Amino acid sequence: MKLLTLFLLCLTVPLHGGILESWNDTQTRTAIIEFVESVTTPASDAFVPPAQRVAVFDNDGTLWAEKPVYFQLLFAVDRIKAMATDHPEWKTKDPYASVLRGDLKGLAAGGEKTILELIMATHSGMTSDEFEGVVTDWLKTARHPVTGKRYTEMTYQPMMELLDYLRENDFKVFIVSGGGIAFMRPWTEAVYGIPRENVVGSRIASEFEYRDGVPVIVRQPRIAFIDDKQGKPIGIYEHIGRRPIFAAGNSDGDLQMLQWTHAGDGLRFCLYLHHTDAEREWAYDRDSHVGSLDKGLKEAADKGWTVIDMKEDWARVFPE
Amino acid sequence: MKLLTLFLLCLTVPLHGGILESWNDTQTRTAIIEFVESVTTPASDAFVPPAQRVAVFDNDGTLWAEKPVYFQLLFAVDRIKAMATDHPEWKTKDPYASVLRGDLKGLAAGGEKTILELIMATHSGMTSDEFEGVVTDWLKTARHPVTGKRYTEMTYQPMMELLDYLRENDFKVFIVSGGGIAFMRPWTEAVYGIPRENVVGSRIASEFEYRDGVPVIVRQPRIAFIDDKQGKPIGIYEHIGRRPIFAAGNSDGDLQMLQWTHAGDGLRFCLYLHHTDAEREWAYDRDSHVGSLDKGLKEAADKGWTVIDMKEDWARVFPE
Repeated sequence: MKLLTLFLLCLTVPLHGGILESWNDTQTRTAIIEFVESVTTPASDAFVPPAQRVAVFDNDGTLWAEKPVYFQLLFAVDRIKAMATDHPEWKTKDPYASVLRGDLKGLAAGGEKTILELIMATHSGMTSDEFEGVVTDWLKTARHPVTGKRYTEMTYQPMMELLDYLRENDFKVFIVSGGGIAFMRPWTEAVYGIPRENVVGSRIASEFEYRDGVPVIVRQPRIAFIDDKQGKPIGIYEHIGRRPIFAAGNSDGDLQMLQWTHAGDGLRFCLYLHHTDAEREWAYDRDSHVGSLDKGLKEAADKGWTVIDMKEDWARVFPE
Repeated sequence: MKLLTLFLLCLTVPLHGGILESWNDTQTRTAIIEFVESVTTPASDAFVPPAQRVAVFDNDGTLWAEKPVYFQLLFAVDRIKAMATDHPEWKTKDPYASVLRGDLKGLAAGGEKTILELIMATHSGMTSDEFEGVVTDWLKTARHPVTGKRYTEMTYQPMMELLDYLRENDFKVFIVSGGGIAFMRPWTEAVYGIPRENVVGSRIASEFEYRDGVPVIVRQPRIAFIDDKQGKPIGIYEHIGRRPIFAAGNSDGDLQMLQWTHAGDGLRFCLYLHHTDAEREWAYDRDSHVGSLDKGLKEAADKGWTVIDMKEDWARVFPE
C-alpha cells in the first residue's frame, strides 16, 4: 500500500513541482529553468556565486499591467481631482482643466510635456513622508478604470512566481523601472516581496531642509533622473553597481538594459514579455503608445533572447 | 566534575560573550547593546521589524582611517604618477606638477578645486569595468604613507565587530560616504561584508554608449552628486528609501545624516566616533582639515547621542 502510494505520487509530481506553476510547459518555461539550474549548479561551467546573481525587472508591463496608460499617470489624474479644491485656477487652465473634465484623450494629445506637468504638480511640493502617505492611501481605494480591480491586483501571477523562483535560488531581485522610484517603494515589498532599497526608478530632485527645526526632505518640481532607455543601465550602475545576469522587460525602453546584461561575460538571460493576449489582458507591441516593443523584438530574435508569448506561455495572467 | 565545569564556565563567559570583543566595557558599549536589544525584542515597546532595521555608516574616519588625507586622494595621487608617462604636459602644469614632485602641501593649499581636478583626471574617461580594475589593482599593492600598512588593513576592528553585531540582529547595513561610490564598491564586500548595492557615495556622471557595437558605461568628468552634509540624507532617501534607525559618523559632514535619523519616530541611535587616540591612531576634531568634528560634538551633547572616545572605549583599533 505504501509503495503503491509512493509510486502514484511519483507519477503525478511534475519534474519541477511547485515552481512556475502558472506557466504552461512550453520552451519559455524550460529556458528559464535551464538557465537558473546552469548558474546555480556548482559543478556547472556557468556557475555564478550568489553575490553576483543580480536579476532586474522592469515594472510597468512586466510585473503589472500598463494599459490604458501607466498606472502612475492615473494616480496623477486622481491627485489632480483631489487637489482641485485648493486650486480653483485649474478649472480653466490646461492640462488641469482637461483632467477635471475627464478628457483623457485631450491629455494624451499633449504628449510628454503635459504628462511631466501633471507629474510635477502631484509628486512635488511635499515632504518625502507626506508623499509616501499619499501613495499608500491612494492604493487602498483606487480602482482600475477598465477592470475595476485594485491596481495591486493587476500584477502578473507568472512573474510573481518567477521572482519567487529566482529568490529561492539566491538571486538578488531588483526593479529597474521608468516609473517614479518614490511612487513604487511604498508597496513593492508587500506586493512583490522586493524591499524598497531594491527599487531603481526615475526621480525628481529632493532637498534637505529644516521646518521648525525638524529636518525634512522636500520633493522638488525638477526631473533629476529618467530611468528609461540608456538611463536603465546607468541606473543599475549607480544603484546596484553590478551588471545583472538576468534582465526582463517588455518594451523598447528596456532594450539598453537587456543589451548591457547580454554583453557581460558568462551565461546571461534576457527576457522580453510580449503582450499577445487580447482576451485575458491586452495585445500590443510596435504601435502602442505605452510599452512600444519594436526594435526589441527584432534584437531578441537576432540574439536568441527568450520572448514570453503571454497567450501561449501563461496558464494564468492575474492572481485569482 | 561536570557540574563544576559548568559552574566555572558560567563564571568566565561574559554576559555578552562573543560580541563587540574589541570594545572596553564602558558606557558606550553598553548603550549600543541596550539599543539593539530594545529594538529586536518583540515584547519591547521599541521593537522594530527586521525590514525597517536600517543602519548607515560613514566610511572615511568611521570604518577606516582618513589621515593624513582621505585614502581616495592618495589613490588619485598614485594614479597621476602612473598616468604621467601618457601626459608629458603634466610635468609643468599644476596641480599635476606638484603631485609629481611629491609636494602634497602645495596640493593641500589648492583646496577643493585642486582635489576635484585630480579626481576628475583619474576617475573619468574610462569604462565602468576599467575603473573597477584600476581600483582593485591599486588596493593589492598600495601602502599607507605613514603606517606602511595596506589601506584595507586600516579598518577599525571595533567597528567591524559592530557591523557584524548589527547584521546578526537582522539589521541591513549600508555605507553612506562622501567618498566615491565606484571607488568603494570593488572592495566593501570583501573588507566589510557590505555588498556593493549597499554602498551610497558621491559620484560623477556616467553615460551609456556603444564601442564597436558593444554597450559600455563611460565615466564622465562631471560631478553628479556629492554625498556629504545635506547630501547624506538625500543619498539615503534616493538609494535606500527608508529612514535609518541607526547612524554612525565621525565629522560634521555626517551631522545632517544623524539629525535626520534622530528625527524619525521611535527609538533611534546616533553615534559619533571621536578620534582621541594620538598613540594608536590620530587625535583630532575641531581644527582638522579632514574629518572636522565641531558642531557635531555640540549637538551630540545637546541631544544625548553616543560619542565613542577611541582612547577609552576601544581595546584595539586596527585588526591584528
